[in-house]
Amino acid sequence: MGLIGGSMGIDLKKRGFAGTVIGVENVSVNAEAALRLGLADEITSYEECLKRSDIVVVSVPVGSAVKMLPDILDHFKEEGGEGKIVIDTCSTKEQVVRSVKYHPLRTRYVATHPMAGTEYSGPWAAMPNLFDGRACIFADIQESDPKAVKIVERLYDTLNMRPIYMDASNHDVHAAYVSHISHVTSFALALTVLDKEKDEKHIFDLASGGFSSTVRLAKSSPQMWVPILTQNRDNVLRVIDTYLEKMRLFRDAISDCDSDKVEKLIEDANKIKRIIR
Amino acid sequence: MGLIGGSMGIDLKKRGFAGTVIGVENVSVNAEAALRLGLADEITSYEECLKRSDIVVVSVPVGSAVKMLPDILDHFKEEGGEGKIVIDTCSTKEQVVRSVKYHPLRTRYVATHPMAGTEYSGPWAAMPNLFDGRACIFADIQESDPKAVKIVERLYDTLNMRPIYMDASNHDVHAAYVSHISHVTSFALALTVLDKEKDEKHIFDLASGGFSSTVRLAKSSPQMWVPILTQNRDNVLRVIDTYLEKMRLFRDAISDCDSDKVEKLIEDANKIKRIIR
Repeated sequence: MGLIGGSMGIDLKKRGFAGTVIGVENVSVNAEAALRLGLADEITSYEECLKRSDIVVVSVPVGSAVKMLPDILDHFKEEGGEGKIVIDTCSTKEQVVRSVKYHPLRTRYVATHPMAGTEYSGPWAAMPNLFDGRACIFADIQESDPKAVKIVERLYDTLNMRPIYMDASNHDVHAAYVSHISHVTSFALALTVLDKEKDEKHIFDLASGGFSSTVRLAKSSPQMWVPILTQNRDNVLRVIDTYLEKMRLFRDAISDCDSDKVEKLIEDANKIKRIIR
Repeated sequence: MGLIGGSMGIDLKKRGFAGTVIGVENVSVNAEAALRLGLADEITSYEECLKRSDIVVVSVPVGSAVKMLPDILDHFKEEGGEGKIVIDTCSTKEQVVRSVKYHPLRTRYVATHPMAGTEYSGPWAAMPNLFDGRACIFADIQESDPKAVKIVERLYDTLNMRPIYMDASNHDVHAAYVSHISHVTSFALALTVLDKEKDEKHIFDLASGGFSSTVRLAKSSPQMWVPILTQNRDNVLRVIDTYLEKMRLFRDAISDCDSDKVEKLIEDANKIKRIIR
């Protein structure tokens, strides 16, 4: 019942997709908040939730998801709940998909990654309309039951998300480029400036909007990001290395006071305008 | 008549500080736009503007400012305009201040850096309320006439800016940390992802809000940023080097799959919350 699960709860209920939203939340203060904030109609135990739900949404850090998914499919099997569906919302897909690859009920699982979020977490971070207009990745759908996929497509359509289909390993490469690297660069920027702050107390009086937006993701939680960065290690390292090369191009051009080179680099970087409004 | 000069024009007129705003703009399509957008009451030649203005605001790239400031003080002197004031709004201060250090009318110049802006430039980027609540650096005010400083303080007070006083070299160190490095990291991030895009056309379908905010500054213009990065070379290089060290800490921790180390780094980076809401 955090940012993603809670925000889904709000909109799926409000927009009539879900009759009842059952939340599972181990931290009691968060459970109370989830109810009070209207993220779920009720909070139950994990087992009761699995028993009563038609669709189970696993919105937990990826390290937990790889343990939870096989267990949920086991529960489905024990209960004869072969009509049930489980989806996850994790930011990496390859290891998550692998965790149930040979499970007899693999087809009841649909791997998705709704590409939306903020740097905050927990039930208080949940909000309506979080997903509107964003992309949702469906990974390896050929491994899932087509009818289950249809239902999950309807779920994300209710959230006004654009579906994009790709295989899990491809997803992880893309996510490293358009999401994971941004977090690493923000964390490193925060560390750089916090280091300087030890000597100069007032450095942040000067922080303007540009700095804030570049460093915003550095507020993201380690609970979420440690498993993402380690699970997607190879892709993330490859992107970091390309990024370090680009930083070094800038460093050398500035060091040489080579204005033409700096200008060319910035002009090339400006082409990002094609993409980001 | 761009982002900074134009935005000042709007608010200084609207809030009653300026009786008349006279703009200077060499590009004719920009000059027309500035009038149409209400950034200035009229557009005149450089010389006429200097003759008729009580306060001259130099909002040009720092490379031009170092040439323009001595010339403006020369004009003041020729015209016997010793009561006039000139200010600049540049993002580096040390070289700008040095350009008029020994000018006989040095005291008529007040060096300022209003820490506000967006990644856009030109008259169409100008907007009301751009400066509200932001910090404005006053550099080396002991070199300026105290009465002139008072008037300029009133100007920035009209823009609802918090004044902060420091010497020019200190300003450039701070600006490297809280502004210039953010731009370099954004440019490098844009280059990294644009490189990947050559192979994979659809990579940007996945770009979410986090990526956009981290890469936003990469849209900033080379006209503005080449002179900033080269003029503030030594400070920028020092910050880049610290930043590269932090990136390498992350790289190594991820490469070693050392979750504890990654967690510690992220927790440390999270302390930026103290600073940035």
